[in-house]
Amino acid sequence: MSLTVFPSKLLENAVNEFASLPGIGRKTALRLVMSLLRRDPGEVSKFGETIIRLRSEIQYCSVCHNISDEKICSICSDHTRDKKLLCVVENIQDVMAIENTRQYHGLYHVLGGVISPIDGIGPSELNIDSLEARAGTGSISEIIFALSTTMEGDTTNYYLYRRLNKYNIKLTVLARGVAVGNELEYTDELTLGRSIINRMPFNLPGT
Amino acid sequence: MSLTVFPSKLLENAVNEFASLPGIGRKTALRLVMSLLRRDPGEVSKFGETIIRLRSEIQYCSVCHNISDEKICSICSDHTRDKKLLCVVENIQDVMAIENTRQYHGLYHVLGGVISPIDGIGPSELNIDSLEARAGTGSISEIIFALSTTMEGDTTNYYLYRRLNKYNIKLTVLARGVAVGNELEYTDELTLGRSIINRMPFNLPGT
Repeated sequence: MSLTVFPSKLLENAVNEFASLPGIGRKTALRLVMSLLRRDPGEVSKFGETIIRLRSEIQYCSVCHNISDEKICSICSDHTRDKKLLCVVENIQDVMAIENTRQYHGLYHVLGGVISPIDGIGPSELNIDSLEARAGTGSISEIIFALSTTMEGDTTNYYLYRRLNKYNIKLTVLARGVAVGNELEYTDELTLGRSIINRMPFNLPGT
Repeated sequence: MSLTVFPSKLLENAVNEFASLPGIGRKTALRLVMSLLRRDPGEVSKFGETIIRLRSEIQYCSVCHNISDEKICSICSDHTRDKKLLCVVENIQDVMAIENTRQYHGLYHVLGGVISPIDGIGPSELNIDSLEARAGTGSISEIIFALSTTMEGDTTNYYLYRRLNKYNIKLTVLARGVAVGNELEYTDELTLGRSIINRMPFNLPGT
């Protein structure tokens, strides 16, 4: 079904908008649009207005560059968090993923990507100057690099290390190893090899 | 990732709206919302307004109940189409599917569903009275039942037959048989059995 014949321009426009989203094909877009047509007009207006407000009113925290409804985000302004600890991530989804573990209570710094010469992303496209400015205040004792374990992530880690090494700050990286719940035989060789080299003392569970 | 911790209420509302669409989970919804945040505000406003206009301005053809931007849809008002031929379909997607074949040049009648006692859909919930009214005008010579080949579709075919049989109109149904491009060994028994009973004279291709 090529969906070339639309009975209505309104319908065609709506299908085109949904089909412009990543991973949404034209048949799926039509299904989504038809589901909106079955709803109350008020409900659909709320949908549309939520999208418009999202883009027009969204702010980014002036300290950590996380998405925020205020000038300073709720994490940066939370007095119960450890302000000596900084975690560097690529994007906002990573902040949410780490927050959902409930294992981290420091602050964040969102880079907005990783260094990738192929995609034309150099250090100046990323929030690195503001990261160095935060490091220079002397109030931070540890910075955790929590970037993707890809070549681009490793390159960025190395670049950040060179920029931040001159400050008296402990620089760490997320532990790499066999994922929890993964079977050993399906773990890739590189990960398995590294996890043997970086083996840890055995602790009884719960200690 | 349970996505319970959102850094922004605007973001959370937008994710909730997308996740309310059929077949869109919360992780996909977040991915779609993040892609909107990377676009121009004007572009995103257009997206939102297209959705709002779709629901508030959409009309249904007063003759065939197809979606339309006018009181009478472009198919019903097209003078080149065969007005003696009527094709009864369940929904608007079926009209589009048949239009895309470019093999049909008559008019349509959109029922809005099929009779399904389990879902509480009886004949009075469907556009059957208006179908009978069209049949009663005497200007139609053939009505094609193009409903799903399910129990509900067959029930509806039978009900329509009883309602329309008294008019001097030829009542037909879509050919059932082995789908074009399907291998015989994977065709279900019922379809294969029917296609043997309803075998057709062999014609050389192109004749």
